[in-house]
Amino acid sequence: MERVAIIGASMTRFGQRDAWIRELLAEAGSACLDDADVSPLDVEHLYVSNMASGEFEGQTGVPNALAHDLGALPAYAQRIDQTSSSGGAGIYAAWQSVASGASDLTLLVGGEKMTHKSTAEATDVIASLTHPVEYKHGLTLPSFAGLTARRYLHEYDAPRESLAKVAVKNHRNGVDNPHAQFRKEVDLETVMESPIVADPLRLYDFCPITDGSAALLFCPESEAKQYTDEYTVVSGIGGATDTHVVHERDDPTVMGAAVESSELAYEMADRTPGDIDVAELHDMFTILEFLQSEAVGFFEQGEGWKAVEEGITDRDGDLPINTSGGLKSKGHPLGASGVAQAYELHQQLLGDAGERQVDAEVGLACNVGGFGNCVITTIMEQA
Amino acid sequence: MERVAIIGASMTRFGQRDAWIRELLAEAGSACLDDADVSPLDVEHLYVSNMASGEFEGQTGVPNALAHDLGALPAYAQRIDQTSSSGGAGIYAAWQSVASGASDLTLLVGGEKMTHKSTAEATDVIASLTHPVEYKHGLTLPSFAGLTARRYLHEYDAPRESLAKVAVKNHRNGVDNPHAQFRKEVDLETVMESPIVADPLRLYDFCPITDGSAALLFCPESEAKQYTDEYTVVSGIGGATDTHVVHERDDPTVMGAAVESSELAYEMADRTPGDIDVAELHDMFTILEFLQSEAVGFFEQGEGWKAVEEGITDRDGDLPINTSGGLKSKGHPLGASGVAQAYELHQQLLGDAGERQVDAEVGLACNVGGFGNCVITTIMEQA
Repeated sequence: MERVAIIGASMTRFGQRDAWIRELLAEAGSACLDDADVSPLDVEHLYVSNMASGEFEGQTGVPNALAHDLGALPAYAQRIDQTSSSGGAGIYAAWQSVASGASDLTLLVGGEKMTHKSTAEATDVIASLTHPVEYKHGLTLPSFAGLTARRYLHEYDAPRESLAKVAVKNHRNGVDNPHAQFRKEVDLETVMESPIVADPLRLYDFCPITDGSAALLFCPESEAKQYTDEYTVVSGIGGATDTHVVHERDDPTVMGAAVESSELAYEMADRTPGDIDVAELHDMFTILEFLQSEAVGFFEQGEGWKAVEEGITDRDGDLPINTSGGLKSKGHPLGASGVAQAYELHQQLLGDAGERQVDAEVGLACNVGGFGNCVITTIMEQA
Repeated sequence: MERVAIIGASMTRFGQRDAWIRELLAEAGSACLDDADVSPLDVEHLYVSNMASGEFEGQTGVPNALAHDLGALPAYAQRIDQTSSSGGAGIYAAWQSVASGASDLTLLVGGEKMTHKSTAEATDVIASLTHPVEYKHGLTLPSFAGLTARRYLHEYDAPRESLAKVAVKNHRNGVDNPHAQFRKEVDLETVMESPIVADPLRLYDFCPITDGSAALLFCPESEAKQYTDEYTVVSGIGGATDTHVVHERDDPTVMGAAVESSELAYEMADRTPGDIDVAELHDMFTILEFLQSEAVGFFEQGEGWKAVEEGITDRDGDLPINTSGGLKSKGHPLGASGVAQAYELHQQLLGDAGERQVDAEVGLACNVGGFGNCVITTIMEQA
């Protein structure tokens, strides 16, 4: 099976943006085509990762509009929704379009416009992915995170501070990311004393609500050199689903869909966890970084917190995690996040990550929908 | 390139249903697995074609829920949205998943729950796919249909009655479809004297608002016989996009995205329009059947109306169109319609269409999003 190359990548500044979804998508899409020096008219398939433009802005048919805005007509255009893992699902869709021979040049643009809504309104849109009965009992995603964090700390004798250290690390990384929503360090005390949101988790354990978009351009590996010498390859990718109702899971501290999707990705790439040099994990809540770092096999179950305590996941550690700043400091525009994870790996693998640069030949990204309801794991490598 | 087989198919009764989207999807999905006698645990990818469960029911994450409801965990599950062509886009996604080797068994379920909303509310959700400026000027999809019909009748000297005859024909076909929303004939006079909706189009020129779902099960053609001797193949498929703003098109009577997507499908299938024995076209409005029958090359531009007048597209004509009853009498649950078109072709090609049976070895379906904004053309054949 021929591998699929990424020959262009871009992302907008994440944060509060005075632009609607069409403008955000066009900004990243256009920059991505510029990055690869490719004409929009050459694009064959155009995928848009977006959870809820209809709910957030009353605008649907966004891929159609984007094909027009980019000047990419009559490229086939379609939307991918997998809630907060829509970006990773878009990578999988783009990969399939190229690997199947349906398209020789596929542009993926992920984005979301959220900050014009109140936190309560945005939380309501996101919570629409849960089971209605859970929601009626107050179980939004932040509540699940609080319950799971409590269980994790209890089960594995982890200190509360280890969660806070994820926030401290990712904020530190975000300082050097010009696209990040928050570019400021926070210290342990600030995190530990921030307002409680879902006990034991506090304000700084959560990612913000964000506007932004990101884009990637894909082609068959055998054709990549026609466009550029600066490309990376998707060597492995897999997706899996966990129960819709979270309480039906045997062990809430094990993220089953991350286990299964990473196994598929490792198998396709012929790689093992030990081969991974850098990773972007879906730290929508600090606890999720622990769960994924264990589920994808970086650390034993219940040991993820130790890696953070020991600095292993720091930028100068053995396995840097979330060099981009993660969702925590970079922000989390739902449909964009999975695409932006791959953007960071692309920069790292090409040596273009500036102050954030680490030594990496193989990277892994884990994009999570819901509370582990669906997970896409992607492995990317130097060409 | 290996062809992709359809080894199972199902659809629910279309109409006003006392069930929410999860139940409708599970009904068709489960029946489709039964049709192929396949265990849900063997499904590798699960795609859900759905435009707007969030807007219609406040429920997102539906693919995740369906994977659970069908007992298909941990199958990869994801939503496909391309507005009213979400079903066709789902076929393309399922095709790509199998053709790329990502999945050896892909279940596609398309559905929509709409009738609990008023016609005005449902029209508002659908109109969210248009450009906001068009909408503010009153240009919903029915208005575009009225304007385009007027232009077509003027440009090609077609009688108003020819449009009405599309409704009469498709209602006649729908009588023999046990899944159809309307199973009653209408005569020419009834159509011609029904209330005006968008002059010159009247009530019976429009499809209804509908609840329902449909499903298809895909695998590589080389593996189909392991499951069943009763399968069909997707020999060609293509998608294309037209301008988001309808008034920017050179000629509103030419459906450009149907021209381009059908050219891609014919090329992949190594077929020409003359090879097609039966077709399902997206007759959301009667005028659209003319436009597509010309765009996909069945008839010369401006001649589609004559084919209806001459009975060529009748069930006993040379090229039966919409033997299922079409969207017009079968109903149009947005995400389900493209899947249900393929269901009808599957039945026709297998000789399982009962009273609706025609003589057919090759079929074509055209699924339209918006007012020709995006079109998927699929060619299916006997194995």
